[in-house]
Amino acid sequence: MTVEADTLREALLTGSRRALAKAVTLVESTHPDHRRAADALLEGLPDPSNTLRIGLSGTPGVGKSTFVEAFGMRLCERGTRLAVLAVDPSSARSGGSILGDKTRMERLARHPNAFVRPTPSARALGGVAARTRAVIRMVEAAGFDTVIVETVGVGQSETEVAEMTDLFLLLLAPGGGDELQGIKRGVMECADLVVVNKADGALMAEAQRTAADYLGALRLMRRRRTDPEGFPKALTISAVTGLGLDRLEEEMSALIAWRRESGVFDRLRVLQDQAWLEAELRALIDAKLRDTALSDLRAELEAALRAGTTTPRAAAERIVASLFSTDRGSSA
Amino acid sequence: MTVEADTLREALLTGSRRALAKAVTLVESTHPDHRRAADALLEGLPDPSNTLRIGLSGTPGVGKSTFVEAFGMRLCERGTRLAVLAVDPSSARSGGSILGDKTRMERLARHPNAFVRPTPSARALGGVAARTRAVIRMVEAAGFDTVIVETVGVGQSETEVAEMTDLFLLLLAPGGGDELQGIKRGVMECADLVVVNKADGALMAEAQRTAADYLGALRLMRRRRTDPEGFPKALTISAVTGLGLDRLEEEMSALIAWRRESGVFDRLRVLQDQAWLEAELRALIDAKLRDTALSDLRAELEAALRAGTTTPRAAAERIVASLFSTDRGSSA
Repeated sequence: MTVEADTLREALLTGSRRALAKAVTLVESTHPDHRRAADALLEGLPDPSNTLRIGLSGTPGVGKSTFVEAFGMRLCERGTRLAVLAVDPSSARSGGSILGDKTRMERLARHPNAFVRPTPSARALGGVAARTRAVIRMVEAAGFDTVIVETVGVGQSETEVAEMTDLFLLLLAPGGGDELQGIKRGVMECADLVVVNKADGALMAEAQRTAADYLGALRLMRRRRTDPEGFPKALTISAVTGLGLDRLEEEMSALIAWRRESGVFDRLRVLQDQAWLEAELRALIDAKLRDTALSDLRAELEAALRAGTTTPRAAAERIVASLFSTDRGSSA
Repeated sequence: MTVEADTLREALLTGSRRALAKAVTLVESTHPDHRRAADALLEGLPDPSNTLRIGLSGTPGVGKSTFVEAFGMRLCERGTRLAVLAVDPSSARSGGSILGDKTRMERLARHPNAFVRPTPSARALGGVAARTRAVIRMVEAAGFDTVIVETVGVGQSETEVAEMTDLFLLLLAPGGGDELQGIKRGVMECADLVVVNKADGALMAEAQRTAADYLGALRLMRRRRTDPEGFPKALTISAVTGLGLDRLEEEMSALIAWRRESGVFDRLRVLQDQAWLEAELRALIDAKLRDTALSDLRAELEAALRAGTTTPRAAAERIVASLFSTDRGSSA
């Protein structure tokens, strides 16, 4: 296995797309041997401190794919090697969006400098965050210097994505009050740049108003020590006409330059590794909980729950106690 | 403590709002004594099998609050005692939405038959699902026969809410392709009734078209054994004019009558209890992981991670091993 991992790592480091595809498949596999091979592959990868990891979030309909395609094409045309990954906790249940990713970002997906990984299907619950991090390391090892990690929704996945990236963009559509209510404070706090898309044609004025509203909201929140003067900011762009994309790139570069200079970038990377460790821990414990050895006790406790003779918390305490003693037995 | 729990339980069972408020505070407290008291309170509550738990989801801007207010007022006027709870994983980070819940559902919140619990602030991460279930049991014990559990977003929280309710409504706004892409299959699969709101004025035709589109999408998915003939369904309503609310109630009643008759209702309740046990388990293990006893080992492993001499997964394995052996020591 280690020999295989060494061979695959070498191929990966030459930038082989075939090796990258294989590495990603290993990471996303549920087979224990594949997972171990993927882990072996992670050892001895080069230091990724010169890469840039961009988190991107936005509710459905804001034009996220159009934005990634337009923005990504600009980068790729100039020689940036860009990987686009998706984190989608809701796909854990049955995999993928209804229409799928195949028709999204068609031009970008064909560009030689791009690697677009569609939303993976039916990933194991709990391990999504850990695996996405491993995929980030794999694409970086294969020479992609910029990674966009995209997520859908207004919930927990934003926090997860913010914890694995260096910079976080929140993409919004023009429109006022409803969205100010809908986008949660936690998500706003993740955002380094709030980007109002669709600033073209009839929506131009509304987009500018929305950006101003959000700028006000951002100002109400405390400034973080990870931000230079003036950040977070709110901008307007049009993914269709390209308006504002120059400015967006400049703001991103300025923020990252400041973070690298000030040491914030490195500190964020340390936090990313800690969060990764946390995600692996949770995935491991989930696996232990699903262990068949516990199933008799669980059945018994579930019957007691139905009979009303125990509470879920008391039952959970007994399972945790047994988890420890089972392990004690097997390790003796 | 047990004596206090007994007194509080008695007051709760008389329907005292003060007792209910206190019980909910105990459930949501992070203090171990309060959590134990809340758990003691759960023992010996009456069988809740005659209550109805309704899950409700919809992305921001679809008019969820307007719907809950309109629909809830109808129920309360007819003597239903209705509790409205919110599950919001994104509030874990810093609590609540930007504008807050105070201005939402104003009429309903003042109705004597209603209990509206605003989004709780800064709950402990991981325990949200477990605690919401305990709050459901508390409001049921206080005589609320119908509970609406509302959630925001298009992600994981829907699955969580579906796992604690008897019936799941997905509320949508009129509008086509974008939303069909945005609403994930996993969320669609949770829905017993897809409800297209804002079927009034200029949006009427669009709302009907949207409902027809979703009906088509629902038909493409396999029918579940928990559904009678014809379900899941897609309807149009207007929370503002009240159009379609009669039909919605009829469909909900028909579905629940069938599920009660067929035994599906009871089976779903058993699954709800199992999911609750699962949520308690995760909350307990999270607490163990945050235990200070592990902090030295963690610091050491994080340093090794930074140095590149271990991988997150290998580090996680060492922590889990130590978690077990630490416990072994302390229980000896």
